[in-house]
Amino acid sequence: MKDIHAMMPTTARLALGKVGITGVRKPLNILRPERMQPLSATFQVFVDLPESRKGSDLSRNAQILAEVVDETVLHPSPSLEAACATIARELLTRHSYATDAEVTAEAEYFLRRGISPDKQSLEDFTLVGKAWAHRDDGVTVVRKAIGAEAVGTTACPCAMETCREELAREYPELSRKTLSEMPVVTHNQRNRTRLTLILPENVEVEADEILEVIEASQSAPTYAILKRGDEGRLVLMAHRKPRFVEDVIRSALYLTGKKFAHLPDDVEVEAETQSEESIHKYDVRAEHRATLGELKGLLPG
Amino acid sequence: MKDIHAMMPTTARLALGKVGITGVRKPLNILRPERMQPLSATFQVFVDLPESRKGSDLSRNAQILAEVVDETVLHPSPSLEAACATIARELLTRHSYATDAEVTAEAEYFLRRGISPDKQSLEDFTLVGKAWAHRDDGVTVVRKAIGAEAVGTTACPCAMETCREELAREYPELSRKTLSEMPVVTHNQRNRTRLTLILPENVEVEADEILEVIEASQSAPTYAILKRGDEGRLVLMAHRKPRFVEDVIRSALYLTGKKFAHLPDDVEVEAETQSEESIHKYDVRAEHRATLGELKGLLPG
Amino acid sequence: MKDIHAMMPTTARLALGKVGITGVRKPLNILRPERMQPLSATFQVFVDLPESRKGSDLSRNAQILAEVVDETVLHPSPSLEAACATIARELLTRHSYATDAEVTAEAEYFLRRGISPDKQSLEDFTLVGKAWAHRDDGVTVVRKAIGAEAVGTTACPCAMETCREELAREYPELSRKTLSEMPVVTHNQRNRTRLTLILPENVEVEADEILEVIEASQSAPTYAILKRGDEGRLVLMAHRKPRFVEDVIRSALYLTGKKFAHLPDDVEVEAETQSEESIHKYDVRAEHRATLGELKGLLPG
Amino acid sequence: MKDIHAMMPTTARLALGKVGITGVRKPLNILRPERMQPLSATFQVFVDLPESRKGSDLSRNAQILAEVVDETVLHPSPSLEAACATIARELLTRHSYATDAEVTAEAEYFLRRGISPDKQSLEDFTLVGKAWAHRDDGVTVVRKAIGAEAVGTTACPCAMETCREELAREYPELSRKTLSEMPVVTHNQRNRTRLTLILPENVEVEADEILEVIEASQSAPTYAILKRGDEGRLVLMAHRKPRFVEDVIRSALYLTGKKFAHLPDDVEVEAETQSEESIHKYDVRAEHRATLGELKGLLPG
Repeated sequence: MKDIHAMMPTTARLALGKVGITGVRKPLNILRPERMQPLSATFQVFVDLPESRKGSDLSRNAQILAEVVDETVLHPSPSLEAACATIARELLTRHSYATDAEVTAEAEYFLRRGISPDKQSLEDFTLVGKAWAHRDDGVTVVRKAIGAEAVGTTACPCAMETCREELAREYPELSRKTLSEMPVVTHNQRNRTRLTLILPENVEVEADEILEVIEASQSAPTYAILKRGDEGRLVLMAHRKPRFVEDVIRSALYLTGKKFAHLPDDVEVEAETQSEESIHKYDVRAEHRATLGELKGLLPG
Repeated sequence: MKDIHAMMPTTARLALGKVGITGVRKPLNILRPERMQPLSATFQVFVDLPESRKGSDLSRNAQILAEVVDETVLHPSPSLEAACATIARELLTRHSYATDAEVTAEAEYFLRRGISPDKQSLEDFTLVGKAWAHRDDGVTVVRKAIGAEAVGTTACPCAMETCREELAREYPELSRKTLSEMPVVTHNQRNRTRLTLILPENVEVEADEILEVIEASQSAPTYAILKRGDEGRLVLMAHRKPRFVEDVIRSALYLTGKKFAHLPDDVEVEAETQSEESIHKYDVRAEHRATLGELKGLLPG
Repeated sequence: MKDIHAMMPTTARLALGKVGITGVRKPLNILRPERMQPLSATFQVFVDLPESRKGSDLSRNAQILAEVVDETVLHPSPSLEAACATIARELLTRHSYATDAEVTAEAEYFLRRGISPDKQSLEDFTLVGKAWAHRDDGVTVVRKAIGAEAVGTTACPCAMETCREELAREYPELSRKTLSEMPVVTHNQRNRTRLTLILPENVEVEADEILEVIEASQSAPTYAILKRGDEGRLVLMAHRKPRFVEDVIRSALYLTGKKFAHLPDDVEVEAETQSEESIHKYDVRAEHRATLGELKGLLPG
Repeated sequence: MKDIHAMMPTTARLALGKVGITGVRKPLNILRPERMQPLSATFQVFVDLPESRKGSDLSRNAQILAEVVDETVLHPSPSLEAACATIARELLTRHSYATDAEVTAEAEYFLRRGISPDKQSLEDFTLVGKAWAHRDDGVTVVRKAIGAEAVGTTACPCAMETCREELAREYPELSRKTLSEMPVVTHNQRNRTRLTLILPENVEVEADEILEVIEASQSAPTYAILKRGDEGRLVLMAHRKPRFVEDVIRSALYLTGKKFAHLPDDVEVEAETQSEESIHKYDVRAEHRATLGELKGLLPG
């Protein structure tokens, strides 16, 4: 059988940065401290292609994915990003002509959460795993990334002040002191924040800790089960901690520096947060990248 | 050339309810009172298929769409639903074997709106047009539908009362009377409401009037341009009109009965409203169908 | 605490058809013949609302969902639609003012499939479960639905004939007989077909059997792992069974009548199929509803 | 009124890379050689934020967008990317504290196309405009990007050879010579290719020329109106030019070097192409970035 992929390119002799498969859905098992967690992940799997080959052997990518995933049935992977790292290494082994491999995976992730111990239920979050393998002179080096995303709520600090001033005018009988202390109406919205740490292969980070950082940075987390009194508590909690997206992302980055202060300074941190504004038809968004070293520098003395 | 479509079905002799093309994007022009409005619509175009034919001649559907759309460059269509009605009739003409045709179109629609005359900008809404043609004994009857959707905001009336009670406990110095009158914190969210009227072909309804009904039914409309003071005004307005989705849909239906009281009683009205909750990760939704006659019955004697 | 939901409606005294929550993501376990299958489902949960109540107690919906889902950790549900039926019953129990409940769930579902026993991997499908509970005079009756969707491939029978005629003209040395027997170029595309059966509560249908019907109706199934020779085999298989969407849907309905002939005649069957055309920017689609009785009538005497 | 945005950050003193608004839909008019073209674009608009400010004045972003868009009603913008550049400059003018602005816009774009002059209709494509403004020492420099995306079709060259070998075995009466020359069955799919050029502000590129490059690089373009004979012609055309995604992207980059050889060598070119495989449930994708200088180096001496 002719090996069309191994032939010379017919359109132009140009090495390509990334060739691969995307949107591959796979179930896999990862190990959590006290249990096995089934995940359904969407994978993207790429290698580079030298200028001398017409095509990349993409069936190998699907084959590796299937093998790694099957293996987790018996031996769960320590984490989504560890599974990505295994796949990235294996890609370079089987695509002997490639020097770079990239694997990304995104999966829904459920954690038991609630506004009180008796109102807990499974809340959905997003897990992100990534890995890059680079081969140089026969040696393969792997970097990986772990990310997580949580949906929470934000209350706008600016509109709250404007409303406070307006209420002071409209209700002169209100004590200035009380009005300045009490939570006041503003707009609030669904906020989606994602935090990703890019790490050497041997450094471990726990996704649940990333989610704790995110939830602590929003005005409040959100929950499926809220009885009448709980709704009020959550609303008051959010309005006592009004936050712009700028506040959310700065807080998430600051707390990352604090919680992961034991990790190396050259760990890279990516943060992004988006609020689906309730008073506009569009969203508000902030993005920032920093090294963990920079973030540790924000910590007091 | 063999006419494969006209051959007998090879898998089973079964008449089919709907065969057609979907996701067809087309630009077209419609007439507004004082201007020509360009729209980009997504069309779905179906006819039925008798048990004696293997296939429907789908290239005719694309051809009709292209012709009707091209015609609007020179002669704008009176409305999106009128264009649908024209296409539905033409489908039955060219698919001589069919007795039913269905056309639906959805398009983004911009209107100049703002919280004050000097802060206006183009806000985006959705227009829906539909038409059904039925041929019986050589006579074709067409019904059509016009719908519109607006994104606005809602403030929850229940959490507001819970928070009012909680604030009363926490700030005993607050006058009961003032507290009961002033807008109090609650959760608010992006709300999406759609209202559709199903009409005889010769009855005209103006989409802008449907959008007015929707915006009057939400806690407040939303706008692109809100300077600091405006944000406060909008927030207070929404909190002075707290609404469940149940309130939004009931109001939209009630106001439909009022605004379109001159239309026949057998006009059907479909309403749906969805709030992207800021304190939950899921949405809250209400749907209802009624005849215009039922809705008129809600009006005060 | 004031019960705002139980108050009289403030906007209009109108009973509402459906009020509920949508987009609720939940993991649950269902029983398969030889294993427990974890699923992540998206739920929609509705009840009706009488004209005398301002709001529906939506926190109950979330509570029921959480309880039913938690219960499956210890005692897996027999199926997704059985879980829906349990939820629908429970909705009517806890919303004492409601007479109708509707629950729909959609989940990704993996099955081991492959072009040959040594090339198997987990392929992704979609499972659909639905249930409707209606209470009349204190008696609750539940109907349920089970659906499944598979992505496969179709090859167009019409373009194949046109190309055959063209090839005959271009290559007069080709034997008419060979040319009429061999598979010839045409366009093929990703096809997505969904089949749903609406059943009494006590009738059981196996989702895997529905998926077998769908895959047998497309030109060919699709697989993740295809080595070079397998690609050729799959391509030839698809081109030897060229199918319009009309053919796919008729075949799926016919085979449903055959495979489920032991079920009652009044079972309703809904089929829909959509091909993402490779030679057009739009999709081609067919839809049909029939009773199982009608479909059995298609079977040879 | 307190200026909350101008206050010191409350969570952490950290400069942020990007703060802005996303998903802003706006209609605008651009000038085409012989006509005014209305577009509906989705904008993303960002500036950076110094560590000394709590928030970015996002209402200014919406205001600028509205003004630039309104201006095009009377004076159409020369292009989508020119509108982005105008907005980016204006962002730095009104956010005096910012040094970087980024604007991206994506719009649907219709061109009259067809397989023959009498079968033309409006086909939909995607236009991309971007601009980055950077202020240093009072001087603002703007770079911009123009991109375009087309949906076409690809036929797999590898499966075609496998099928050719298989047909040779099955139909030994077929002449080797004819079989090696004629188009043979393979799988084909919807392919989506995007090409973007990053340019100095004063260099102009025509989107239609980018689309010509893309369509010439796929196995064939796709069209809305294809009568029976046309379908055959398009299918044969695609099968006579079978292409991997690797071929499509290399061809697109090669032809970019050729068609835009008159532009400076440091123009950057980004290409991405994705095929929605008809024989797999996942997609196949290639990405590459190069300078125009590198691409010109591929041209024959």
